Formats: sequence, C-alpha cells, structure tokens
Amino acid sequence: MKIWEKGIAVDQKIERFTVGKDRELDLYLAHFDVLASKAQANMLAKVGLLTEAENQQLQQGLSELAAAIEAGDFTIEEEFEDVHSKIEYYLTNKFGDAGKKIHTARSRNDQVLTAIQLFLKDYTERAAAKTMELVQVLLQKAQAHQADLMPGYTHFQAAMPSSFGLWFSAYAEHLLLDLALFEAAHTVADQNPLGSGAGFGSSFPVDRVQTTNELGFGALAVSSVGAQMLRGKTEKTVAFALAGMAATLAKMAYDLVLYNSQDLAFVELPAAFTTGSSIMPHKKNPDVFELIRARCNALQALPNTIILTISNLPSGYHRDFQILKELLFEPMTQFMDILDIVLFALPQLKIKPNLLAQDKYDGVFSVENINQLIQTGTPFREAYQQVGRAVNEGNYVPHKQFQTTHLGSVHNLGLEEIAAKVARMQSESRVLGKKK
Amino acid sequence: MKIWEKGIAVDQKIERFTVGKDRELDLYLAHFDVLASKAQANMLAKVGLLTEAENQQLQQGLSELAAAIEAGDFTIEEEFEDVHSKIEYYLTNKFGDAGKKIHTARSRNDQVLTAIQLFLKDYTERAAAKTMELVQVLLQKAQAHQADLMPGYTHFQAAMPSSFGLWFSAYAEHLLLDLALFEAAHTVADQNPLGSGAGFGSSFPVDRVQTTNELGFGALAVSSVGAQMLRGKTEKTVAFALAGMAATLAKMAYDLVLYNSQDLAFVELPAAFTTGSSIMPHKKNPDVFELIRARCNALQALPNTIILTISNLPSGYHRDFQILKELLFEPMTQFMDILDIVLFALPQLKIKPNLLAQDKYDGVFSVENINQLIQTGTPFREAYQQVGRAVNEGNYVPHKQFQTTHLGSVHNLGLEEIAAKVARMQSESRVLGKKK
Amino acid sequence: MKIWEKGIAVDQKIERFTVGKDRELDLYLAHFDVLASKAQANMLAKVGLLTEAENQQLQQGLSELAAAIEAGDFTIEEEFEDVHSKIEYYLTNKFGDAGKKIHTARSRNDQVLTAIQLFLKDYTERAAAKTMELVQVLLQKAQAHQADLMPGYTHFQAAMPSSFGLWFSAYAEHLLLDLALFEAAHTVADQNPLGSGAGFGSSFPVDRVQTTNELGFGALAVSSVGAQMLRGKTEKTVAFALAGMAATLAKMAYDLVLYNSQDLAFVELPAAFTTGSSIMPHKKNPDVFELIRARCNALQALPNTIILTISNLPSGYHRDFQILKELLFEPMTQFMDILDIVLFALPQLKIKPNLLAQDKYDGVFSVENINQLIQTGTPFREAYQQVGRAVNEGNYVPHKQFQTTHLGSVHNLGLEEIAAKVARMQSESRVLGKKK
Amino acid sequence: MKIWEKGIAVDQKIERFTVGKDRELDLYLAHFDVLASKAQANMLAKVGLLTEAENQQLQQGLSELAAAIEAGDFTIEEEFEDVHSKIEYYLTNKFGDAGKKIHTARSRNDQVLTAIQLFLKDYTERAAAKTMELVQVLLQKAQAHQADLMPGYTHFQAAMPSSFGLWFSAYAEHLLLDLALFEAAHTVADQNPLGSGAGFGSSFPVDRVQTTNELGFGALAVSSVGAQMLRGKTEKTVAFALAGMAATLAKMAYDLVLYNSQDLAFVELPAAFTTGSSIMPHKKNPDVFELIRARCNALQALPNTIILTISNLPSGYHRDFQILKELLFEPMTQFMDILDIVLFALPQLKIKPNLLAQDKYDGVFSVENINQLIQTGTPFREAYQQVGRAVNEGNYVPHKQFQTTHLGSVHNLGLEEIAAKVARMQSESRVLGKKK
Repeated sequence: MKIWEKGIAVDQKIERFTVGKDRELDLYLAHFDVLASKAQANMLAKVGLLTEAENQQLQQGLSELAAAIEAGDFTIEEEFEDVHSKIEYYLTNKFGDAGKKIHTARSRNDQVLTAIQLFLKDYTERAAAKTMELVQVLLQKAQAHQADLMPGYTHFQAAMPSSFGLWFSAYAEHLLLDLALFEAAHTVADQNPLGSGAGFGSSFPVDRVQTTNELGFGALAVSSVGAQMLRGKTEKTVAFALAGMAATLAKMAYDLVLYNSQDLAFVELPAAFTTGSSIMPHKKNPDVFELIRARCNALQALPNTIILTISNLPSGYHRDFQILKELLFEPMTQFMDILDIVLFALPQLKIKPNLLAQDKYDGVFSVENINQLIQTGTPFREAYQQVGRAVNEGNYVPHKQFQTTHLGSVHNLGLEEIAAKVARMQSESRVLGKKK
Repeated sequence: MKIWEKGIAVDQKIERFTVGKDRELDLYLAHFDVLASKAQANMLAKVGLLTEAENQQLQQGLSELAAAIEAGDFTIEEEFEDVHSKIEYYLTNKFGDAGKKIHTARSRNDQVLTAIQLFLKDYTERAAAKTMELVQVLLQKAQAHQADLMPGYTHFQAAMPSSFGLWFSAYAEHLLLDLALFEAAHTVADQNPLGSGAGFGSSFPVDRVQTTNELGFGALAVSSVGAQMLRGKTEKTVAFALAGMAATLAKMAYDLVLYNSQDLAFVELPAAFTTGSSIMPHKKNPDVFELIRARCNALQALPNTIILTISNLPSGYHRDFQILKELLFEPMTQFMDILDIVLFALPQLKIKPNLLAQDKYDGVFSVENINQLIQTGTPFREAYQQVGRAVNEGNYVPHKQFQTTHLGSVHNLGLEEIAAKVARMQSESRVLGKKK
Repeated sequence: MKIWEKGIAVDQKIERFTVGKDRELDLYLAHFDVLASKAQANMLAKVGLLTEAENQQLQQGLSELAAAIEAGDFTIEEEFEDVHSKIEYYLTNKFGDAGKKIHTARSRNDQVLTAIQLFLKDYTERAAAKTMELVQVLLQKAQAHQADLMPGYTHFQAAMPSSFGLWFSAYAEHLLLDLALFEAAHTVADQNPLGSGAGFGSSFPVDRVQTTNELGFGALAVSSVGAQMLRGKTEKTVAFALAGMAATLAKMAYDLVLYNSQDLAFVELPAAFTTGSSIMPHKKNPDVFELIRARCNALQALPNTIILTISNLPSGYHRDFQILKELLFEPMTQFMDILDIVLFALPQLKIKPNLLAQDKYDGVFSVENINQLIQTGTPFREAYQQVGRAVNEGNYVPHKQFQTTHLGSVHNLGLEEIAAKVARMQSESRVLGKKK
Repeated sequence: MKIWEKGIAVDQKIERFTVGKDRELDLYLAHFDVLASKAQANMLAKVGLLTEAENQQLQQGLSELAAAIEAGDFTIEEEFEDVHSKIEYYLTNKFGDAGKKIHTARSRNDQVLTAIQLFLKDYTERAAAKTMELVQVLLQKAQAHQADLMPGYTHFQAAMPSSFGLWFSAYAEHLLLDLALFEAAHTVADQNPLGSGAGFGSSFPVDRVQTTNELGFGALAVSSVGAQMLRGKTEKTVAFALAGMAATLAKMAYDLVLYNSQDLAFVELPAAFTTGSSIMPHKKNPDVFELIRARCNALQALPNTIILTISNLPSGYHRDFQILKELLFEPMTQFMDILDIVLFALPQLKIKPNLLAQDKYDGVFSVENINQLIQTGTPFREAYQQVGRAVNEGNYVPHKQFQTTHLGSVHNLGLEEIAAKVARMQSESRVLGKKK
C-alpha cells in the first residue's frame, strides 16, 4: 500500500531503491509518530475536525499501537512503505473513516518532521543524561587518583609533572562543555513543526499551540516555510553535538592507547579490553579503545556527510532529506554504545604508581628548577638559560619536590569548583531536563 | 628575536615555514593579548610576584600598546615571530626586568590560548548582534510583504500557495535558531585558561579566579590539562556556529538566485547586485548571491578542515594547533562581510506582485480544492482522488480564494509570536550579552 | 572461536563492539580470501613449507569453500569472528595439521589486506565496465537527440541555444574522464601485499613473486612496511573514484530534476520514476532522481569519512582500519545500484521537442545576433552593445536561424571524436582490462 | 574597467566582494592566459577571423606580456577586475580593433577555463617531477640504512623487528603510488576547453583541433557543455591528488615526530628542524614536522571543501566556481613548499644505531622464536602458545639472530625491484612527461 498510489505500476527495482531502509529505520520513530498522532487527533477534535467519538477511537487505536511498540511487537510489513503508512492502515482498517481523518490538516512532511523532532529531542536528553553519568565517574576517578603523578606530554614528549587527577578532571570538564552543543541540538529539536503541512500550512483551523503544549515542545516553529526548513537542520545539529563529544572521547581513547603501550606503560587496561595478536604472543593490543577512537572519528565526519547531502537545495522539501535517517540513526545508536563501553571501562582502569620516579622523566622537573630560581629572585629568562645549560651539559639535577597551590594544578585539582560547574549546568540546562 | 633561542641558527627557509602568516594573523589577537597581560600583571602584583611599582610600569606600557592598537599604529616587525614576542619586547625594552617578569607563571601556551578565547568570545558576541539586526530586517520584510503571495515549491516544483511573508519570517526564525550554535561557541570560549601554563599548571601561587573575574570570563577552565585541551575545541565550535548560519544564508541566496531567474522571476535584484555576461547582453546574473552561496558553502566545510587538522592528536599541545589561526580567522572576517552584504541587500530587494495570477501556477491550488471538499464532509483520501482525476483529465478549476487562520500560515504569519521568541532569546542568551 | 584466545574471558558486550558487522561484511571478501589462500598454499608447497599432499588437501578444501560461496551456501556462524577464522576452522577441522599450516608465514594482517586488495581491484573493474555501458547509452542518446535543441543555462538562467545532443555527450565524456580515478584506484589495489605478514615480513623463505603472478596482481608491494600501509589507502582511493563519478551522476540527476519541473518541462520522466504527493494530486515528483542525487552526494562525502578515520595514525597496523569495511562496502554496493538505475532510466527518458520555439527563450539567441553583426564586420564590443541596447529597449528580434560548425557545437557534436576517445581508453586502460 | 559594464554604477563594497582576491590569484594564470591567447589568435587567423597582420600584432603584444610576466614585471592594477581584462586592455590599447578581436568566438568562460587547465596540468607535472626526486632520496636513504634495525610498531606497540631500510622504501613506494592520482588529475587537466564559449559553443568556424595541438593538450573536450563542466572537476581532481600525497607525507611526519620523542628516540632531527619551549629548556620540539603534518592534514580536507562549494549545482556556469581559485591556489603552493622542506630535511636525518639491542624491545623477537619452532616442525598454533607461555611466565629468551630472505623483508629490501617500478612509471606515465 502506498498512499499516493495513482494506479501506476511502479517498477519493483525502483521501489526498493526509493524505500531503502525506511521500514527498519522507522522503528526508531514509531513511538514518536504515535505520540504526535494522538496530539493531532486531540487537537482536531478540539477544533471540530473530528467528533469526540472519532477521537476516542483514534486514541484507543493509537494506545494499542503504543503498547505494541513498547512491548517490541510492532513491525512494518513489506506492504507498507514506512511507519506512517502502517499506522494509518491500522487505524483505517480498524475504524474506517475515522482512521482516514487522522491525516486531515496534516501532510506526510510535517508528520515525519514532527516524529523526527520528538525522537531527536528525546535522544539529546538521553545522551546528555548518560554524559552526566560519565562526568561523575571521571570526577570520582580524579579524586581517587589525585596523588598519581604522571609526566605531562606536549609535542609527544614528556614535558612537565602532571597527574591522573588533572587528566580525569580535564575530560570531565570537557564533556560538560560538549553538552553545550547538545543544548543547541535540543533547542533546534524542541521546535514544533506540526501543522505546517507540506511547508506552506493549510486552510484548516488547526491549533498549533495546543499540539505544541501537548507534545511538550519548548516552542512552535511558527512560519510553515521555516518549520519545513527544520528538516536536515535538526539532524545536522545533532550530528554537530555527536561530533563534538566524539572528539573528546576519541582523544581520551587515543591517550589510553598510548598510555597502554610498553613505551609509556602508564595504565593497565583490563584484560577484557585488549586482544592478542595472531602471530605475536607478547602483545596486548588495546583494540577496544582503538575502535572507540575510530568510530568517534567516523562520527566527527558525520556532520560533513549530512551537510553535503542537503546543501545547495533551495527551501522546500526534496526527497534527498529522506536518506538522512540512514545516515544518522545508526551512528546515533553507535554513539550510545560507545558511551556505555566507556562507562563500563573507566572504573576498571588501573593506574601505574610512581611513574615520575623513573630517571627517564627527570627532565620534566626542569620547569620546577627554573621556578625555584625565580622564586629566589632570578628573572625568568636568566633562570631558563641557567637550567638549559645544565640540561645541555649533563649536570642537571631534577627538583622533584614541588608543591602547587593554584586551582587546576597537581596539588589543587579544584574538584569542588568543577562540581559547582556541574551543578550550575544541571540547574540551567534544558537538555538535562531541569529547566523548561 | 625568538624567545626560545638557544644559539642554534635556524635556517631561513624553515623559519618562514614555521612562522607562516602569524605576524599578520596575530593582529586579530593583539588587543586581547594586551587585555590578558594587564590582568596577568595585576594578578601577579596581588599575589606578590610583582611589586606594585613594576605592575604600574607594566600597566602603563600595556595601555600604550592598547592605544596604538586602537589607533591602527601597531605593527609586528619581521624580527618578531608573533604578537606575544613583540609585546614582551616592548615591555622589556622599556622597563627592563619588570618587562621580563610579565612571563612569570605564564607559558606561551596559556598566553596564546587566553588571547584566542577572548577574541573568539568577542567575535561570537559581535556576530550574534549583527545576526539580530538581520532578524529584525527579515521580520520587517515579512510584515511588509505579508500580502505578496508566491508559489511554494517542493521537489523544484510549484506545490502550494505560499507568501513572501512566510518566506522572510522563515529565515528570521532560522537565524534565531542558528544562534544556538553561537551560544554553544560562546560557552566554550567563555572559559578562562590563564594560569594553566603549558597545560600542567605551575607551582606559582597564581590566583586564577582573579584573572577570570578581571577578564570577564564566565567560568574558569579549572583543570590545567583541560584548559590546554580548549585549543582547537573553541575554534572548532566557532566553526560549527559559522557553518550552521552559513547554511541558512546559502539557502537564502540559493532561493534568491532561483527567484531572480527568468523562469521564476519572483524578485528583482537591485542592479548593483547583478553583473552582466561578457557575451550575452540579455543576462543579469545574480553574481553577488552566487558568491554568497559559494562562500557560505565553503564555510560549511570549515569545521571539517579544522577537525581533520587536529583529530587523532593525544592530549597536550602540538604545534599543529598553530595553523588553526590561518584556517579560521580569515573566514570569520568573510562571514562578517557576508552578513553586511545581506543586511545591505535585503532592504533593496523588490518583490514581484501577483505571482499566483499566472495560469501556470493554477495547480498550486489543488490542495485547497481538496480541503474545500473535506470541509464539506468528503474524507481526505476520496477528495484527493477526486481532485487528482480532475487534474489528470484536464478539467481542474483552481480554488484561488482561500483563507488560512492557523499560526504560521499565509494569512496569519504569527509575527508577534516570533517577536516573542526574539524577546525570549534576548533575555536568556549569554552571547547576546543580556545575561551573564 | 577466536584464534588469539589466551584463556581470558572477553566480555560479551565488548566482543559485540569489536566484532561489529564483520561477519556480514566479510561475505564480500570470502571469494577473494579463498583465492589468496590457494595461492598461499601453492607457494608454501613450492618453497617446501607444505608437502605436496598437504597442499592438495588444502586446495581441495578451498575449492569446496569456493563452490559453497559461489552457490550462496557459505555462512559465517556466530562462533567465528570473521571469514578468515571460519575458513581456517573449516580446513583445520577437515585436515588437522595441514589446515593449521595454511597460516605459516602469513599474518592476519596481510591475509585481510590481500583479500581486500583483490576485492577492491575486482570492484573497480566491474564498476568501470558498467560505466562504459552507460557511456555507450549516453552516446546513443546524444546521436538520437542531436536535433533536439534546448536552452543552455548559466547562473540558473537561459543563456544560449544548446541541445540534448551536447548534453548527453557531455555526460558521456565526463564519465570517461571519471574513469581516470578508477584507473588510479585500480593501480593502488593492484599491489600484492601477501607475504608482508604483520607489516614487517618474516624469516620464512616465501616467494612473493609467485603469489603476485598466481593472483594476477600487476605489481608486488615490495616493502613489507609499505604493503601494510596500503590498508586504508586503497579504500580511500576507491572512495575518491566513487566520489568523482558520483559528482557527475549527481549533476545529471540535478539537471533532470530541474528539467522535469513545470517551469522548465524539458523532459518527461517515465511514470515509474516519479512518485505522487500525499496531499498534492497535481505533482509528479522526481523522487528517484532526487534519491540518486542524495546518495551520490553522500558518496562524495565518503572519502572524507575514511580520511578522518585513518588520518594521524603512524605507520603500522591499528585496529581503527577495521571499520573501513563498514564505511565502504555498503556504499560500494549502493553505487552499483545507482549505475543500474541510471542505465535503466536513461533509455526511457522522453525529450520535449521544439523547446526553443517558446517566446520566453528568445533571449538565448542574442549571442547569435551579435555574431551575425561580427561576421558582417562589426567589432565584438560594438555588436555586444548594439544588441544589448535592443534587449533593454524591447525591440530585440531573435536571430533563430543559426548554424554551428565547430567540433562540440550544436550542429557538429563530434560523436566520432568522442568514440575515438572511448576506443583509446579501452586500449590503454588497465581497469578496463584490455591492458596488463 | 569591467568589460560587461552597462552603465550601471556598481557599489564599491559589492565590487570588492565580487572581485575578491582575483587580481592576486590571477598572477598564477597570467602566463597561461597569454599562451592560450596566442593559440586563439593563430587559430582565428587560420580560419580567416583575423587578418595575418592583426595576428602578427597580437602575437607581438602577447609576447611582450609573456616577457613581462617572465621578468616579474607584470601587475594587475586596481582598475582591472582580473588578468583577462588586463591583457585585453593591453592589446586593445596598443592595437585598437585588432585587440578587441581577440575575444572573437571566445567567452570569458572558456578563456578562464583554458588558462586554469593549462596551469593545473603544468602544476601536476611539476609536482610529479619533484615527487620523483623525493622517491630517489628515499631509496638512497633506504640503501644507506638497510642495516639499521628498528622495532616495528603496531597498535602503538613494539611488535617485530623492522628496519629503516623497510621504512624509507615503504614511503618511496607509496609516493610512487600517490602519483596515480596525479596521473588522473593530469588526464582531466589535459582536455582542451577552448572554443566551447560560455558552454554551448558558437557559430564561428573555429578550429578546436588546431588550438588543442598548439597548446599541447592531450585531448579535446569535445562537447561544449562537457568542456564547461570541467570547471571545478579539474580543481577537485588536483585536490584529490594533493590530498592523497599529503596523507603519505603526514604519516611520515607523524612517524618522525614519534621517533624524535624521548620515549622512542629512533632518530635525531637536525637542530634547524626543532624549536625550543618558552618554559621547558630540556625540550627539542619537532615543530617543523608537526607543521608539515598539520598542513598536510588540512590539505586532506581540501577536496571536501571544493566539493561542498560546487556540489548540487546543475550543469552550466555559476559564479560559485570563481572562489575555487582562492581555495586551491595557495594550498597548491604550500604543498610545493612542503615537498621542498621534506627534500631538504630527509638527507639530514640521523638514525640512531642498535635500537634493538635495548632490553625493552626483547618482545619483538617473539615471532622469530615461534618461527624457529615452526621450522623445526612444531605447528604454528602450538609454537604460538609455547612462546606465549614463556612470555607470560617471564622465562622468555629472545631469538635475536634472524635472517630474512623474501622480497621486502629486513635482509632483502628489494630495492632493485622498486627501482624497476620507478622505471616502469617513468616510461608509462604522462604526468612525468615521458609519454604523450
């Protein structure tokens, strides 16, 4: 069944090409299409385009569908091109004309768009919540390992004393910052397009404020032309958010891959996170973190793929938008898997103690040597040259005793200040659900 | 003069390669480096690392530099590798040891980073303010042209009646939404990295809260490791913001290029915005809007270029970050130019009246015909088929009289509701400066 | 069964994450892994690392697997992590020690790499052959429609007289040019990495020239380090080739979407290639070509996704490379589908006759008017101004009779010259298989 | 002077926006525009559109311009919008009507396109020649360092014995392979578009074969529509070539950055290639190679930027193409600089001897231990487990004496075979100029 069927036989091959993976991908949307259809029916009843009896039928039918979706019993058979056809068929088959009327004052365009908006908004909230869990784990690790010093690297070279406390809390703060892009994606997804029809509205007296309220949208996408232009923009903004956080996770994974190497040996990855080599028995390869890194890097490419797919199209709907579902939905799931794996892995990460006791890291204390000289009155440039000479001439003695005091330094991680940032985020952020 | 000089002659060719365009690009940062240096000196004086007299010298010297920058008299000569060397030289040359001490408890890394953060934060605020001007222009145009109907297109085909009121207000709403990414960029840029040194802090008793407050940063980037990780992330987030809004402007430009064509002829571009053909005297080519489109599309590629340049680098500074200045700063300026051109162009745009009076657009009323049938009781699917038959059989009569009532439709643009969104944005947004 | 198992229980969740879609994707490689294993066994027998009897067993077992693959009976069960484990298990289960010996002097790295090289090389040859079919169809259409004039557009505006002959032959020539990137991809895929082990060779006396010859590779990837570095590079070069041709097909699709619009109405797409609107019965939307365009644009983003996944990794294998299979293989299949759809669609495309008889296209003859003046002695700039005045003052009379003579113009398409280019390509190109 | 001036005053601001950096960028094209104008004039004389006397004037004027360009005395003043206007002005100013006639049967479109094709073709030849120099340097280094063993890394972990001979020869082979994309770019650039006018040819009896031959193009872009479609495609294909080779150079730079670190310390970079730290006197940072890596990674993003700028434009010229000059030309120059720097750096690179004598690399011999067992009859899997147990139980004794024999292994680099690949490339490649 295709609802636009006009008696023309469409070649099978082409139909496969046009339907693509829609049936599979639309399962992500089913729950939200039902929600939006309920709101649509309630609104139609309110403005008199449905009788109360018709609306009750539709609400009941949609609740049955919702239950089936919840129970995992909902499927989209081959004879339906997408989830929307299936739901409409269910209602029409069951209730006749009342079922047909659900499509009054609604186009496939605003219907799909509304389901996508709801789905993406929900996703940003779930991803943000899971991110906050990860932030907490990182802050706990920072606390636990605040005394575990490590050499801090720049240019792939050991540079100065650092600590795992600083390292863990750095990633905690960065994930918090990454939520700013999720907030932006949430804002874009939080616009209600329902009632915009095919992008130009309709002459039905629909009440768009009512559906906005019932569906919990933060705002109405007022202009129908603008509502339609959300298609692609919300997907892209979600992709920006994924790409932003993926960059942070990729960097963390990269660090761990390096820290796991024999040359650095800063951490011990749990056995479950490493794999062996088919010919080299001495290796414990950090495959899980390499795969996290690779998938996160592929996620960083996602916004570009979406942009290329939809750029240089004038306003108004084009079928091109349809493939965004297959470009975006699976990576969204992969990203959640990655968050889960990282949440699972971090608590098991073992840190090697006393890393800075190794002679090969003596050089990292040279800045301390300089600072000692400065604090006894030597100007910086002279102190720098003096220590530099000692290093070059081989008579450098590292000043291993040092004490930092400023916020964000080895001996003063500022975890309370970071906790205050977390709290502020939680009270102000819409994507974290604490503020509407 | 290179401050890290150790007596090794660096080949000229390589120096050119490593310095690149830094002297030119650093002019963007000069103002902000002076601000940050003033805050640094004040803080050093407060914690006792500078005498009050030294600080007064430094404040005076930095104020002189600020005045020179303001007056356009500041230059970075060939003997300096960057703005920071130049400023330090100025202070040292003038005040001797006091000048040297400005670098106490500061690394080139956190110094550069702080200047970049301040510059990018300021930029997001200026871009957001200019965007709000454009939003206002668009809303005025929407108001002025609310009665100017046009065919709404989908799939590059005339589909339904629309209006320039809907079109202008759509872009107004979308620019508002695009500010969400500027808000995110502002959040990332609003973190103070000063005091994080080379990414691992120092043993000096610096007061990072004081510099945060003096510089007006919204938050302290607490972990020194995390502060260093801002390098690249802020640039990337600004690029996301530019790319997001560039997509909107590119779409608008694309629309106008099409609307200017002889086939559609919906608008008349001012003569100053078109150019002729070297061999075709009948053409008025919309070159300005084509160039806006092209530059905006190139801007959409910018985040990817930045990502590729900095991805797969472990935490800690790498020289790779340096080239971000040349990747980002010039496009940032181009983007402001584009906003200016659009602000200049839109008020002059002439809309052709009575577009829907043309027979060729009769088809766009077919949805209205269907809706009329529905409102007299015909179920949607039957009405659809009935009108479809009329179209196919050539006896279709367009229902040109129609009246819409819902928010965001041809006859109810909802400009007040959009104005309310603008007001809400202005009261809540940090990047618009109304909320700290 | 995982061949590197060292008695450590790997968590189920992580295993799913690391195995990913390998079992499914490896079906693409099965045929080629069998070929490479046969060559490996033959070579091992030749250099004395297998007995002749062992080799005969392995050849027989591998032929059985080849037959199963050919018949579609080959599957990779859950207990195997990939195709290579499955094949090795089959041989070991059947022949004991002989089966185990197939892995002598071979690493999983060069084994996978060899199968991928063979698969990608084969793919480029199949894609190139199909492209040549499309070139022929386009040249036939050019011939058939050489008299069908159309307005040629620049800047989205009708500019000069053109023809469908020029249009079809343009795409034929461009697809030919696009084969240059397939040739490059073929060259990279045509390097034999077998024997390079994990990227550093082995102390076994393997004969790499023999496997190069048996497998039909054009060259040996000599340095084992360099052989390993093919991983990712071949995939990326194939992606460049896909992206290059996808750009051409996307442009063709874009043209057809425009030409199908009511405003231009240059072509009639077969009913099977259009779909209706759920609310607008007058529309015949060119969905198939919009989807071709969208998928081709997504393909244009593919090289970037691959580059981002593998950039900034030092030489040597990293697990990151594994996900290239899922990034590349499905789009490769989609691209073949697109070629099929286009091959299917083009012969059915109907061209509207006498397009230039419409008054609205009078302007396109202005260049002809100028040329007439020039050929009677008026200098170009003066002729240009004279015709320009006529256009502006509304007394322009189009010079519709014109005759072109030069190669590649409306009345002299140069199809023989293009056919000569085709012939030259066929005689010189390796990817077209005519030259080794 | 703007040749399309129609008496309309174009606003200064807009003019700056539309002209952009054309005057500066067009200096790259000046030489080639003169060449193409000479060929155009000769052809016009041959077909009778210029008198012989007029042609002699034009040839003389163009030779004067060529000499000025060669001498560096050619400039494009503010009053000209581009190089083409300047050259035309020079000829018209000097020769009157004859100067004006140079534009007969030529459009700005095919004129610009021809100059770009010639410039890009020439560039690919120069880049390929320089690449071959680098290949030779790498092969010399491979020869010189064939006895210098190093640990081969996978997963960032020391894996097996390798050598600098293998490492240098790997990059030599890869640069050779990278020439395949330059060959493709050369093929696309080697098509003559001259005579295609604005993309639809003309009614002048121009002889396009003559200009093809005079300009040394390998082929004629026959269809005028197709010729115009080269705009953007050639640029993109050159960008693919740059991106391909940039990936190889970035990987080499990444390796060297790692090999320069204190942890690995495999190489010593010449002092001129490192810089110090402003606060850490013990560091010698590999800034030059980090900048090579960063610039090469930015080059890897270039194809995507070009694709995004020109995708989803239908056939025919759009002004969007103009900005490709600024996107491409400067990076092309940067790439040549990078090749120069690498050519300069590699001969000075010092390799540390006896790296594998260090105990920490004992593990890399475990594969050798396994192979020894295999060669004495133990099946692979058993040998693997036996050595694995020794490693785990701490009683592993590395088998440091090993001897490889196969092509591409430590003790048999196969440099003659690689030299044969070089020779084959030189005899077959068009971009290397040895074959037309």
